[in-house]
Amino acid sequence: MRVHVVERRIMWGDLDPLGIVFYPRYYEWMDASGHLFFESLGLGLGDLFRERGLTFALQESSCRYHHPGRYHDLVQIRTSLVELDSKALLLRHLIVRMPDEQTLVDGRERRICVDVSDPGRIRSLEIPPDIRDLLSRLSADFS
Amino acid sequence: MRVHVVERRIMWGDLDPLGIVFYPRYYEWMDASGHLFFESLGLGLGDLFRERGLTFALQESSCRYHHPGRYHDLVQIRTSLVELDSKALLLRHLIVRMPDEQTLVDGRERRICVDVSDPGRIRSLEIPPDIRDLLSRLSADFS
Amino acid sequence: MRVHVVERRIMWGDLDPLGIVFYPRYYEWMDASGHLFFESLGLGLGDLFRERGLTFALQESSCRYHHPGRYHDLVQIRTSLVELDSKALLLRHLIVRMPDEQTLVDGRERRICVDVSDPGRIRSLEIPPDIRDLLSRLSADFS
Amino acid sequence: MRVHVVERRIMWGDLDPLGIVFYPRYYEWMDASGHLFFESLGLGLGDLFRERGLTFALQESSCRYHHPGRYHDLVQIRTSLVELDSKALLLRHLIVRMPDEQTLVDGRERRICVDVSDPGRIRSLEIPPDIRDLLSRLSADFS
Repeated sequence: MRVHVVERRIMWGDLDPLGIVFYPRYYEWMDASGHLFFESLGLGLGDLFRERGLTFALQESSCRYHHPGRYHDLVQIRTSLVELDSKALLLRHLIVRMPDEQTLVDGRERRICVDVSDPGRIRSLEIPPDIRDLLSRLSADFS
Repeated sequence: MRVHVVERRIMWGDLDPLGIVFYPRYYEWMDASGHLFFESLGLGLGDLFRERGLTFALQESSCRYHHPGRYHDLVQIRTSLVELDSKALLLRHLIVRMPDEQTLVDGRERRICVDVSDPGRIRSLEIPPDIRDLLSRLSADFS
Repeated sequence: MRVHVVERRIMWGDLDPLGIVFYPRYYEWMDASGHLFFESLGLGLGDLFRERGLTFALQESSCRYHHPGRYHDLVQIRTSLVELDSKALLLRHLIVRMPDEQTLVDGRERRICVDVSDPGRIRSLEIPPDIRDLLSRLSADFS
Repeated sequence: MRVHVVERRIMWGDLDPLGIVFYPRYYEWMDASGHLFFESLGLGLGDLFRERGLTFALQESSCRYHHPGRYHDLVQIRTSLVELDSKALLLRHLIVRMPDEQTLVDGRERRICVDVSDPGRIRSLEIPPDIRDLLSRLSADFS
């Protein structure tokens, strides 16, 4: 399984008055990591949108919080594709503190392929074969 | 069932380049509404923290996205208590566009009662009886 | 002088670990209030952009911090036009705690009129006469 | 002159509907870079607060916008101390696009030394000699 890794340090502005990460920040990092994950496959969401009139729209997101993130912690956001079907996919984002590998957050984003060529009439779409090929090669589990 | 309502207008800074709400913003609004919900019951989380050394820590959060929010939409965040057990509770936050009542987002936060009197050793706790009483009165379903 | 007022309560997610407002939040509120200010004059920046290919682009922003904002403070963002010349204008945003009228922040945004009809070649522009008329009527000082 | 450099890539969530950086994000990056600047001198603001009851509180901030930041731009935030007097200091944060060195934003933060040992009575303070020494060594200009 291919895992895409982004590293960042927890900053002052990420914290709440208890000195732990304000949880919507985790979703910001997950969203950014998801975009980088697609780009690492040559599937930049901006390009898909402009050139092919489609995108992977967010259908659901969730996080389970295991341990609070604190000032100056170095974290890795580890993104992988854990489900793929004809129209949708599921990304998992593990946020792990380094170097002790303590999991802080276990997050997911379900994204569905949509036709956005007519902004007034967005509708779901089968993932085109070339994109599905690229994605399914990420794991033997999705064959 | 008691529903706590917060109203806000979607602003320029809430949007992404597609002109729809950047989804971590919804979690910011849900978190703020959750705090106001507790306060409306006389259970300000800041007071609980300072005076009784406990808080309702976030264990899980999730959103299902039904319809994109757009610039200037007026939305209501409608918060209610949908589950209550000895140590934890589940808040539901419906984000509804007004006046047409279109649901944009259906969100949840699971919070667990924790003892934070010793910040180095946070541990889960039975919800104290007086607080449980207050919460359970919100609905006959939790008797 | 016309003053446009937006009221909001300081929320948990606006605070830093010292329990005071994380200052970039003030700029978010100022930006939102600036947009509402233009709209209150019938000059929605989205409409100007789409219909006339122009906008008021930010050239400078600044804040002077007088007093920290704290959890649950009710604040007014009071926006007014304090300078107007042929190409640019200056908005002032006073952020005032209610009801004691303590000024927390004194902020400014200088915006310049730009032609965005060709996104690849953005250039500054004289403010069109009809818009200048609308703006100059806000105060006898700008005649 | 010592310049502290932080590098980051502009992400999807940093953008507004015009596809350019929503300006409060620049202040978030400046604040984070200012904290790292102090830490690089052994003057972590969290440590100063806990161990010596003082901090450098923000008095003013400002930005001049030269060029819009766009998706995926790699930027450096280059922080330096440009003024130092008995009670206050001025940080400059240049936000520069790489590798073409185009300046996007020229920002400043004026910070004043304050005694926070009694949170109810915050007052300004002469910068202690050991800290002033450390800071003044950054440049012959401040002798």
